[in-house]
Amino acid sequence: MIENEHLISPLRRGRRPGTSSSRKAILDAARARFAEDGYATTIRKIAADAGVNPALVIQFFGSKEDLFAAVMSISPEALARIDQAFDGPEHGLGERVTRAHLTLWESDPQDSEALMAMLRAAVSTSQAAGQLREFIQARLLKQLGLRLHTDHDAPVRSGLASSMLMGVIVGRHIVQVPALAAEDLESVIRVVAPAIQMVLTGRREG
Amino acid sequence: MIENEHLISPLRRGRRPGTSSSRKAILDAARARFAEDGYATTIRKIAADAGVNPALVIQFFGSKEDLFAAVMSISPEALARIDQAFDGPEHGLGERVTRAHLTLWESDPQDSEALMAMLRAAVSTSQAAGQLREFIQARLLKQLGLRLHTDHDAPVRSGLASSMLMGVIVGRHIVQVPALAAEDLESVIRVVAPAIQMVLTGRREG
Repeated sequence: MIENEHLISPLRRGRRPGTSSSRKAILDAARARFAEDGYATTIRKIAADAGVNPALVIQFFGSKEDLFAAVMSISPEALARIDQAFDGPEHGLGERVTRAHLTLWESDPQDSEALMAMLRAAVSTSQAAGQLREFIQARLLKQLGLRLHTDHDAPVRSGLASSMLMGVIVGRHIVQVPALAAEDLESVIRVVAPAIQMVLTGRREG
Repeated sequence: MIENEHLISPLRRGRRPGTSSSRKAILDAARARFAEDGYATTIRKIAADAGVNPALVIQFFGSKEDLFAAVMSISPEALARIDQAFDGPEHGLGERVTRAHLTLWESDPQDSEALMAMLRAAVSTSQAAGQLREFIQARLLKQLGLRLHTDHDAPVRSGLASSMLMGVIVGRHIVQVPALAAEDLESVIRVVAPAIQMVLTGRREG
């Protein structure tokens, strides 16, 4: 970052001095805290470790979820696209959620690399699995809130749907089973979306 | 194996001398050939490397598929249970396939450890992913044969179903997302099976 400071546009140069080093101190502190305490750590602790005010952490990163995503090099836009897919009418929910997950891996190389690194780490080490577990659970509860579900099954249903979509991505992009890798994205969505609709709602799309 | 030879029951001691060392030579040769040539290697090449007759390989291991499974420490019974689930009437297909996949991971610690090792390797190294890819594709074509499908989508559909079930297993047993890990197996099957039925058949059960 620092070495490319002269490449930043004049508009972004307007930030006050120290911004870029505070940002880096927060990210370093967050990385260490997430590794040590897991996702249950607090913005307050991270701010203390970084020697900044908690308000500055919020100003830079918005929320603990976005800070975790930044540590994992996932863009906040990527998370927002998944959340938005859960929003909206029940009609088409399976297709929106399927499309949001699969296009994340097929359209943005930086996000897909970051997700891949996260997945590899989670499959290889139980510490990384623990962090990811808490992050995913927190996101499931949030997606549940977005849908205003009262059904106690809702986190199970969205967790199963996300897991199944992750499986499709592993089969298609990581193991690269020929029959799946050769299929175009729209055909995959056509087969998978009705199944995800059933998992999420318990009902077939009418 | 050799060092425990004296622990083998009297019945198994009746095998002719050299059996256990030939078996080991075949497994070692197979491991090296699968690593070098991938799943496309032949029984003939493996037998030549092991210095035995190809017929002995078949006598010991049955088929290339079972030999690959033995190299990966997966029991032939485990593969047979998955294949059998694809057999039988379309009614209940999703439930049979879902149950066969999920119980494999929940009932037999040795098979689930072997599958876990295979999955970890496939996610971490592209060579392991390549071997697994060819093995899975060969199995998909076989499962397709079992169903006597003429539908050209069939390998795509069974590949997607297997991938989605693998995703459920990763979410529940590896990442251990709390909402999924806490759910009992029958409740998971109840949510997942109708979706797998739709992926496999394109139709809702009932």
